[in-house]
Amino acid sequence: MLIGVDVGGTNLKAGAVTEDGGLLSVSTRPFGRFTGAEDFALRLVQLARDAAEKAGASPGEIRGVGIGVPGAVEDGDILYTVNIPLSRLPLRALFQKYLAVPVALGNDADCAALGEWRCGAGRGCRDFAVITLGTGVGGGLILNGGLYTGGGMAGEVGHMVTHAGGIPCSCGRRGCWERYASATALADRARQEGRLRPDSRLSLLGEGVTAKDVFSAAQAGDDLARSLCGAYAREVAEGIVNLLNVLHLQRIALGGGVCAAPEELLIKPVRDLVHRTCYARRSRQIPEVVRAQLGNRAGIVGAALLGDAGRR
Amino acid sequence: MLIGVDVGGTNLKAGAVTEDGGLLSVSTRPFGRFTGAEDFALRLVQLARDAAEKAGASPGEIRGVGIGVPGAVEDGDILYTVNIPLSRLPLRALFQKYLAVPVALGNDADCAALGEWRCGAGRGCRDFAVITLGTGVGGGLILNGGLYTGGGMAGEVGHMVTHAGGIPCSCGRRGCWERYASATALADRARQEGRLRPDSRLSLLGEGVTAKDVFSAAQAGDDLARSLCGAYAREVAEGIVNLLNVLHLQRIALGGGVCAAPEELLIKPVRDLVHRTCYARRSRQIPEVVRAQLGNRAGIVGAALLGDAGRR
Repeated sequence: MLIGVDVGGTNLKAGAVTEDGGLLSVSTRPFGRFTGAEDFALRLVQLARDAAEKAGASPGEIRGVGIGVPGAVEDGDILYTVNIPLSRLPLRALFQKYLAVPVALGNDADCAALGEWRCGAGRGCRDFAVITLGTGVGGGLILNGGLYTGGGMAGEVGHMVTHAGGIPCSCGRRGCWERYASATALADRARQEGRLRPDSRLSLLGEGVTAKDVFSAAQAGDDLARSLCGAYAREVAEGIVNLLNVLHLQRIALGGGVCAAPEELLIKPVRDLVHRTCYARRSRQIPEVVRAQLGNRAGIVGAALLGDAGRR
Repeated sequence: MLIGVDVGGTNLKAGAVTEDGGLLSVSTRPFGRFTGAEDFALRLVQLARDAAEKAGASPGEIRGVGIGVPGAVEDGDILYTVNIPLSRLPLRALFQKYLAVPVALGNDADCAALGEWRCGAGRGCRDFAVITLGTGVGGGLILNGGLYTGGGMAGEVGHMVTHAGGIPCSCGRRGCWERYASATALADRARQEGRLRPDSRLSLLGEGVTAKDVFSAAQAGDDLARSLCGAYAREVAEGIVNLLNVLHLQRIALGGGVCAAPEELLIKPVRDLVHRTCYARRSRQIPEVVRAQLGNRAGIVGAALLGDAGRR
C-alpha cells in the first residue's frame, strides 16, 4: 500500500492508495500554525499513519510515501513554496526519522498530472498535461510517457507571457497568462465591469463576486456574464494553443474550481478555439481538450504514485 | 558510417557522419524542379551515395540514413512541408526501393537540436532546446535526455502567441512570437522605421534592408539600429523566458543567421533578460543561453543520428 500526501496552504491531506491508483482512505487536518520543520514533518507522518489505519493497514504495510507540495522540490528537499513557510526544508530526511520508508517529493501540479494520467483524464496518453485554473494557472506535464519536471521547476505555464507589456505579474514580468486566464482574473474582471453595469447580476454581487458567480449568472442568461465567460474562454484557449504548438500534446485536461462550469460555457468554447487555431489542426493527431476527472483526489493519488514515476 | 540528409527549399545536402557525430564529407545539389516523388527519392539516394563515396566508403558501408525535412513527419512519411511540394510523401518506402538501409525521418529543427545536443552547444544537457531565428522562428527540443517530437509536430515555438491580438500570422492567429522575433520581423521593422528616419544608415539601405544590416549598422553606432537591436533582443527574450518557465530547460542555444551578430548586441542582452526575469532565477539551476555551435552542419549531423534517437 502507498500513501499520498497533499500539502496545501489550508489543509494537509493524506490518502492510502493501491499500487494501481485506487484511493482507499483520506485523512485531513488543517495546516495550522507552523511551529518548525521537525514538527511539520512529524504531523505529516501522523497523518500518513492515520490514513493507513483508516484503510485497515498497519504502518508496516506502507511501501512508500509520496508528498506533493505547492512549490519547487529537488532531491527530497523543498526548495521553496508559494504562500506557505516551507522553503529550504529537507522534508524527506525529516520524515524518514519517524517513518523508515521510501519517500518521494513532488510539485503539487506534477502530482495532479501524474494522478490524472495514471487514473483519470490522461489514461493511455504518451504526451499529456493538466492545466489548473485557480488562484493562478498551474501545469503538470507528462511527456514521452513519463512525468516531466525539468529538474523540479517546469510547468510554470501561468507565467508564459501572452500579452507582452500587459498586466504586471507577481513574477516580475508583464502580461503573464495567469493574469488573464486564472479564476482570480475572471473574478477581477467581473468586479470591474460589474461596477459599470448596474443592470447586471454581477453588480449586485459587488466586490465579493467570484468566478463561479460569473458562470452562474451566465447560465441564468446575464449578458455581461455571458460576454465575460466568452472572453475568458478565449484567454484560456490562447495559452493552451501556445502549449500545444510547442509540445503537440495528445490531450490537455483542465482542472480547478472553474472547470465545474457548464461544458458549453468553458470546455466547449475552449475546445472549439483550440481545434480551429492550433498549428496541428490539419495533422492526423488533433489534440483533445477535456475536463480533469479526479478533482482534489488527483493530488493525493499522484503523490502516492510519485515513487513509481522514477523522479524523486 | 551514417548518412545525414538535409532537405531545404534551396539545396539538398547529404553528409557522411561517424557514429559519434563526426562529419566526414558533404555533398550538395540544388533542390531544382520537383518532378515527382519517385524521382525526388532517387535524387536523395544519389546524394547519399555521393557523400559516402566522398568519405571513401562504399554504399554497402552505410549503416543507416536519416533525413531532415522542413515540415511534419510521421512513421517514415512526410505529412506536409513548408514552402516545398513534398506533402503526403512516403519517403522512407521510396528511398528504400533504391538503397536498402534503415531510414529515419525527422523534422529539420529536431535534427538541428539533436546535432547540437550530441556534438555541439547542448552536450551533456538533459533538457535542452535549439531556437532558430530565421525567416520564422523554429525550435527543436531535447527533454529528459532524448529528442521530444510529440508525435512529429512539436517545437512550433514561433507560433506561441506573445502579443495577443497583435500582428496577424500565416498560421491564422495574431501576435505569434515569430512575427516579433524572427530575422524577417527585424528586417520589416527596420524598413518601416528607416522610412521615417532619413538620418539613419538604415534608410539608405531602403527596402532591401536585412537583419544582418541592422546589426552591422548598430555596431557602427547608428542610433536607430541600436534601438531596434535592443527591442529585438527583448522580443527574443520574451519567448525564451516563456519556454523556460514551461520547460525549465538547462540550456537554450540560439541559431540562425542573426546569431552571428556580435555577442553584446544579441546573445548577451537576451541572456541578461532571461536571467533577470525567468521564474527559476532564484533556483539552483539557472538556465543558460548560448549560441548554437554547428551552424548548417547541425542539420546533417542530427539527421544522421536520428536512428539512434529512437524515433523515426
